[in-house]
Amino acid sequence: MKLWKKNYELNKDVERFTVGKDYILDKNLIKYDCIASIAHVKMLGKVGMLKPAEVKRLGLELNKIIELDKKGLFKIKREDEDCHTAIENHLTKRLGDVGKKVHTARSRNDQSLTALRLYYREELESTKALVNELISSITEFKVEYGRVQLPGYTHTRKAMPSSVALWSDAFIDSMKDNLKVLEFVSVLVNQSPLGSGAGYGVPIKIDREYTARELGFEKAQSNPIYVQNSRGKFELAIVQALGQVMLDLNKIASDLIIFSMPEFGYFILPKKFLTGSSMMPHKNNPDVLEILRANYHVVDSYSFRISGIISNLISGYNRDVQLTKEPMMDSFEIAETSLRIASLLFKEMKVDREKCDKAMTRELFATEETYKLVEKGVPFREAYKQVSDKFSDQSR
Amino acid sequence: MKLWKKNYELNKDVERFTVGKDYILDKNLIKYDCIASIAHVKMLGKVGMLKPAEVKRLGLELNKIIELDKKGLFKIKREDEDCHTAIENHLTKRLGDVGKKVHTARSRNDQSLTALRLYYREELESTKALVNELISSITEFKVEYGRVQLPGYTHTRKAMPSSVALWSDAFIDSMKDNLKVLEFVSVLVNQSPLGSGAGYGVPIKIDREYTARELGFEKAQSNPIYVQNSRGKFELAIVQALGQVMLDLNKIASDLIIFSMPEFGYFILPKKFLTGSSMMPHKNNPDVLEILRANYHVVDSYSFRISGIISNLISGYNRDVQLTKEPMMDSFEIAETSLRIASLLFKEMKVDREKCDKAMTRELFATEETYKLVEKGVPFREAYKQVSDKFSDQSR
Amino acid sequence: MKLWKKNYELNKDVERFTVGKDYILDKNLIKYDCIASIAHVKMLGKVGMLKPAEVKRLGLELNKIIELDKKGLFKIKREDEDCHTAIENHLTKRLGDVGKKVHTARSRNDQSLTALRLYYREELESTKALVNELISSITEFKVEYGRVQLPGYTHTRKAMPSSVALWSDAFIDSMKDNLKVLEFVSVLVNQSPLGSGAGYGVPIKIDREYTARELGFEKAQSNPIYVQNSRGKFELAIVQALGQVMLDLNKIASDLIIFSMPEFGYFILPKKFLTGSSMMPHKNNPDVLEILRANYHVVDSYSFRISGIISNLISGYNRDVQLTKEPMMDSFEIAETSLRIASLLFKEMKVDREKCDKAMTRELFATEETYKLVEKGVPFREAYKQVSDKFSDQSR
Amino acid sequence: MKLWKKNYELNKDVERFTVGKDYILDKNLIKYDCIASIAHVKMLGKVGMLKPAEVKRLGLELNKIIELDKKGLFKIKREDEDCHTAIENHLTKRLGDVGKKVHTARSRNDQSLTALRLYYREELESTKALVNELISSITEFKVEYGRVQLPGYTHTRKAMPSSVALWSDAFIDSMKDNLKVLEFVSVLVNQSPLGSGAGYGVPIKIDREYTARELGFEKAQSNPIYVQNSRGKFELAIVQALGQVMLDLNKIASDLIIFSMPEFGYFILPKKFLTGSSMMPHKNNPDVLEILRANYHVVDSYSFRISGIISNLISGYNRDVQLTKEPMMDSFEIAETSLRIASLLFKEMKVDREKCDKAMTRELFATEETYKLVEKGVPFREAYKQVSDKFSDQSR
Repeated sequence: MKLWKKNYELNKDVERFTVGKDYILDKNLIKYDCIASIAHVKMLGKVGMLKPAEVKRLGLELNKIIELDKKGLFKIKREDEDCHTAIENHLTKRLGDVGKKVHTARSRNDQSLTALRLYYREELESTKALVNELISSITEFKVEYGRVQLPGYTHTRKAMPSSVALWSDAFIDSMKDNLKVLEFVSVLVNQSPLGSGAGYGVPIKIDREYTARELGFEKAQSNPIYVQNSRGKFELAIVQALGQVMLDLNKIASDLIIFSMPEFGYFILPKKFLTGSSMMPHKNNPDVLEILRANYHVVDSYSFRISGIISNLISGYNRDVQLTKEPMMDSFEIAETSLRIASLLFKEMKVDREKCDKAMTRELFATEETYKLVEKGVPFREAYKQVSDKFSDQSR
Repeated sequence: MKLWKKNYELNKDVERFTVGKDYILDKNLIKYDCIASIAHVKMLGKVGMLKPAEVKRLGLELNKIIELDKKGLFKIKREDEDCHTAIENHLTKRLGDVGKKVHTARSRNDQSLTALRLYYREELESTKALVNELISSITEFKVEYGRVQLPGYTHTRKAMPSSVALWSDAFIDSMKDNLKVLEFVSVLVNQSPLGSGAGYGVPIKIDREYTARELGFEKAQSNPIYVQNSRGKFELAIVQALGQVMLDLNKIASDLIIFSMPEFGYFILPKKFLTGSSMMPHKNNPDVLEILRANYHVVDSYSFRISGIISNLISGYNRDVQLTKEPMMDSFEIAETSLRIASLLFKEMKVDREKCDKAMTRELFATEETYKLVEKGVPFREAYKQVSDKFSDQSR
Repeated sequence: MKLWKKNYELNKDVERFTVGKDYILDKNLIKYDCIASIAHVKMLGKVGMLKPAEVKRLGLELNKIIELDKKGLFKIKREDEDCHTAIENHLTKRLGDVGKKVHTARSRNDQSLTALRLYYREELESTKALVNELISSITEFKVEYGRVQLPGYTHTRKAMPSSVALWSDAFIDSMKDNLKVLEFVSVLVNQSPLGSGAGYGVPIKIDREYTARELGFEKAQSNPIYVQNSRGKFELAIVQALGQVMLDLNKIASDLIIFSMPEFGYFILPKKFLTGSSMMPHKNNPDVLEILRANYHVVDSYSFRISGIISNLISGYNRDVQLTKEPMMDSFEIAETSLRIASLLFKEMKVDREKCDKAMTRELFATEETYKLVEKGVPFREAYKQVSDKFSDQSR
Repeated sequence: MKLWKKNYELNKDVERFTVGKDYILDKNLIKYDCIASIAHVKMLGKVGMLKPAEVKRLGLELNKIIELDKKGLFKIKREDEDCHTAIENHLTKRLGDVGKKVHTARSRNDQSLTALRLYYREELESTKALVNELISSITEFKVEYGRVQLPGYTHTRKAMPSSVALWSDAFIDSMKDNLKVLEFVSVLVNQSPLGSGAGYGVPIKIDREYTARELGFEKAQSNPIYVQNSRGKFELAIVQALGQVMLDLNKIASDLIIFSMPEFGYFILPKKFLTGSSMMPHKNNPDVLEILRANYHVVDSYSFRISGIISNLISGYNRDVQLTKEPMMDSFEIAETSLRIASLLFKEMKVDREKCDKAMTRELFATEETYKLVEKGVPFREAYKQVSDKFSDQSR
């Protein structure tokens, strides 16, 4: 039964269309919605809207739902629309009138935002942990192979001497900056929407600071219109932060796809990372790297989905924003899976010292040669010209 | 068992990562892959690679798979990677050595492209049928309410008199152009990839024209590298064509959300299309229109996902393109569902003649007034100025 | 002076903000706006709104503007807002009351769309010509080097034997499909907006078919609301068609950047296409290919810009669409310049037969080996396994 | 003359193609490049690569260029490619051999990144100042009209009572969060690239910390590969931050376009912000708001352009990134202009108290009515149903 049940039935196709995948996606939110409801109920008790016994009963039942969910036993039916409805219905079925009071002083708008933000917070923590794990894996890789020299490229052409250490550090440093980005966005969105109602507050006195503290938010997001307007806006900031992580993975994958080609052979991909062809029996393909590379575009497209959905709309809740839920959840899923795979990769990947050595050809040292002239007092641009002329015969 | 099985095991996480959702998405392709394999097998018979009895046995078994699939009984396991493997394994299990011959003279690359293009063709047909259905629904709506006058807007400001007929025809005409777009793209991509192998042909003599004809393609896509390079390129063209349809639905939704507001009230949405609020008991919300509006951005983001994935890659198959499968399938799903809902909407929606009448205020006729002066011989720009001055006092 | 001059002055910042770059971009449209106005004026004569002498004077003056513009002498001032205003003001200044009549029975909305579509038509013709030129250049290149064998790659790994001819044909075929796409979109958008006014027709009898024929349009776009709604929609279709062209150039560039690396050396870029480094004297960089590659993303982002701008808006003209002008014009500019450069490239590029030869290593023939067994009667999957095992020792 | 001049001439079309708009865009960078060069030269003096007299002469000359540029007198020719070359050529022309030493220990890669980051820093400061100015303007507006009640909407339908103060605060709070985003990204990208060379360091001992401090960077970005890999990555972060600002302006514009329609009339746009129609003499159009709304999509598309350009590329400098310069510069330009216009708007916009009053209809108080029942002890969901039934007759 829907929370807003009217004296008519929704067209079945319309129901299916509007509910979309919510009843599936919301499995991720059951826990968070219960946690938020427990805080909400305690607050209602504090301000005298619920009796202590009611608070206790609701709290117990909500915790039971959390337990059910852990075991995968709490179901959301399509007719329920979402987890919020399923939970309220469950409470009312179990507790009668007490259940009918749980929605006092809130709307689904602020309720679902609260569950989402608790979910985001936990996912962002997981993502950060996985970034740290990747940093460790790259560091181990660097300890093992760092001293190997290999060519550094610009414009996909040999430029100057580089090393496995230099290359590894590039990604360690980049991932450290990503951690800052993730941390910043965590703090930015960690504002409590609870109690802001449908976007214009609730017409009774409640204590929003209390629930904010109780749920570990930095603060209550005080303006209720801003709460609604920040739906999509905050999601965009998060997906873009994940995009920064994915961009680095895209570059790692791009580097490795090229430089593990037998024609270069600098990096040796672990056998169990390679797949074959259905037709060509000799093939060993870096599919895992190609999908890692492509995943960046999936997350990138999600950020553009969100930025499009929320544009050109007036203030206040618009149902359009429901469609930001899937890109958010899938972005976390992709980022986390990709980080795990990348981490595994660095643990198992090897460097072919011999191939690297062989690739350290003469032109990589042309700049050094120039600087030897500079140290002898030749102005840089003159020195450059002298060395350039030596190489011009070989260029084509 | 994988088609490319080596003497080592793929890491389980790697398997999960590379297979992705393919083993689920490929449910949509079982039928098409069997149809394509039947044609392929017949061709192998024709060129003498298979004996007539083998052709017959393979054909029978493939048809059985089609039947199994209709009943939802043909399963693809994650370890199978995709439907192609599941089908070949099934054939080999049932037919022994004969099954091991089915993959002669093709690669999964051309095989999966063939199944996809048969699938696209059928989905494009469905989409066109639904566009036609929507045109009918709008036409019926126009027959009923077409003569009602209502304000025409520019810059979201009353401009000149319009009518329900004029508004309806705008979308009928636009949808007719969409049909042309869908038709064009259907023909464009209706090229047979079968027999192009992994992208460089197959090292035996086969008859690609035969399978092309057999499967109803316009022609064989002769260059095998182009077959691979067109993966993603064709998908992009299709999703963009669907985007043209979605854009019109986005505009229909945008119009109706505004002009069914009680403040205007020109259009009356059917009750069973309206949803309520969990907190505000008076609400009747046009969620279905908002999701229709938002769906445009989902499809739009899919076209950007594809355009990103396939960029900056060298020729030949790259595994990245696997990730174009989900956006393709989901785009069809969204476009078709959205068209169905829109069609339903026009069947049930009403026009409030009274509200429309009342909205036909004086300023809408300012241009007509101007042209009356023009007809009396006043140069247009003079006439414009005279009328403009009359209205300038009321503007603010 | 603005066409809509009121009894107050526009804020200067507002003027600058709303005019944007229009007064610069519109230089491209002066010719087309005059051509359209000449047809419009003739039609006004035909229906009796203008006297023959007036038609003649306006026609002469409009032709003079075309001449002035050819010499770069027709100026659009920012205060004029756009070319349409500059032209009308010019006519009024030169012809007095007759000039004030030119805007009879049209609005800037249909007027500017008409000029744009004439411009699109010509630009699409130029683009098609350049695609044809590129096809010729690739064909010449193929004639010269086609028989050279080089490795074909899948997953950026050596797969099977390919040849310069096969590679060249891939792009020739793709470009031929692009021609069809360009041709289709040319026809699709070749509908005359003229006379549809601001989006709700004009309140006098005119002959829209006449101007449509006169200007070489396929037909008059009859529904005036659709005329406005198709602004942005058609532009999107055009930019996406250009995107198809750019995608192929992106792939050509991606192939050549990699395979002209000295490590491969299959292709030899012409010296005068290579740039150097400010610091590393030995460098020869394929900047031109990198920019060619990047240009795809510029055009792709323009299609995203347009698809975003026109979304979530109600029917009828919205000023937002003005911002589709720059991405359109720049997309044509980029596509045409890129095609020209690509054409030049194929004319001057060489193939290093020796390097290609040397790269034709044993594993490229593994599939052929498999098929030799197949021809001896070994079922394909068995043959595959046998050959696969031979190669498994060398894989890593 | 190019810095990398070889013994052959670049093809003119190639030159034009690769230089692109750089020689124009770089006007914005002259000052910053000189400032960076001054610090660089001082560092070269400090480490003994330049004599004190050389440092002094170069410093003087660079300051003269800054002065010339202020007056618009420093020109960059297309043949110069960019400001860096123009400046080095100028120094060499004026100072002879001393000029030829200025490029010691750096590459254009790190040099241009340094100039860009100094430019970003200043632009980000300007943007923040303009956000603060907008906050002030909204605050003044709120002081004047804050107490006026007007309807709050959800789903574009009247929901609950709101007020001008509540609406204003929503944007004040959002803009305050934007300030945090801008501040964060300022700090993130404020890392000195100078001295990292072409991406693999410079083969002599220099003091990167010194120039970093001298130029006010937070720190030297130590890993030279990361310096190059962060090109585009940092730009993306900045444009996305600007996108957050633009999103709020998009919403402000969307609100005002609708709610300044005479049909609502809550907000009164200042006359001098309104434009007219060329054909309809009565029109007063909110073009400025429509362009404000559309500008969001321009900036959004720029972030997509950058994210596409930098994807699927290997580590190290790739010329593709040159094409991130224009979207960056234009994004700043658009964001700043838009903020200025929005600020002006709030200073001049009025609220129509009467229209707002009249719009405060009964259904807006349905939730309050429900809560009166709740306060009497009726469980919320019961109370909701009672009130819902009262309203159901009126809904349609």
